[in-house]
Amino acid sequence: MNTINIQQKLKSFSAHWHPHQIAVVNDMQVIVAKLKGEFVWHQHDEEDELFQVLRGTLYMQFEDRTEKLEAGEIIVVPRGVKHCPITKDDEEVHVLLFEKTGIKHTGNTESTLTVKDYPKI
Amino acid sequence: MNTINIQQKLKSFSAHWHPHQIAVVNDMQVIVAKLKGEFVWHQHDEEDELFQVLRGTLYMQFEDRTEKLEAGEIIVVPRGVKHCPITKDDEEVHVLLFEKTGIKHTGNTESTLTVKDYPKI
Repeated sequence: MNTINIQQKLKSFSAHWHPHQIAVVNDMQVIVAKLKGEFVWHQHDEEDELFQVLRGTLYMQFEDRTEKLEAGEIIVVPRGVKHCPITKDDEEVHVLLFEKTGIKHTGNTESTLTVKDYPKI
Repeated sequence: MNTINIQQKLKSFSAHWHPHQIAVVNDMQVIVAKLKGEFVWHQHDEEDELFQVLRGTLYMQFEDRTEKLEAGEIIVVPRGVKHCPITKDDEEVHVLLFEKTGIKHTGNTESTLTVKDYPKI
């Protein structure tokens, strides 16, 4: 029940594609992450996932098109929809995510980027 | 699955204490609202509620203390905890909320401020 400063949380780590949990609300969690380059194509069969861009430009690739998100924009990736976030020109993009607790961020895809436990910060 | 611009959504209405739904993620909804002055004391018996301040300074009053939130800060109000948001000096504060679909924003309190249906924008 304390105030959480998103920028302070982001300053506490530097790894890319490594989600950090900053809050839990009902059965969902709030996560921050730093993204750079391309992630892995994956889907979450049972969970929707929300991305909010805090800094930079995120490109959310779907199978049939790509959505461009600037800071202050959000997108909901519905369950079952294959997606792959990517940043361009070596830009580090900061995002806040809302998703179910216990979700695997690489969904149905095992990757060298897969992180089993999200640090709580 | 389209990009949602939070500022554009906020520009589309002016009423205070009137939540507008901009997205649904699993069984939770993303809401934006403009706050000015004091709300009503209430609690949500079964639901946690997240506030993210987008503009201005929000004061979240609890029975034993008040938390001050600036833009870029979030707070989770746990289920069962009495609270009352307030803004100072006539400031209009913009917030994004993350809460269960179907929740009553005034919780257990009926008020002239109670809105039954959140417009979807």
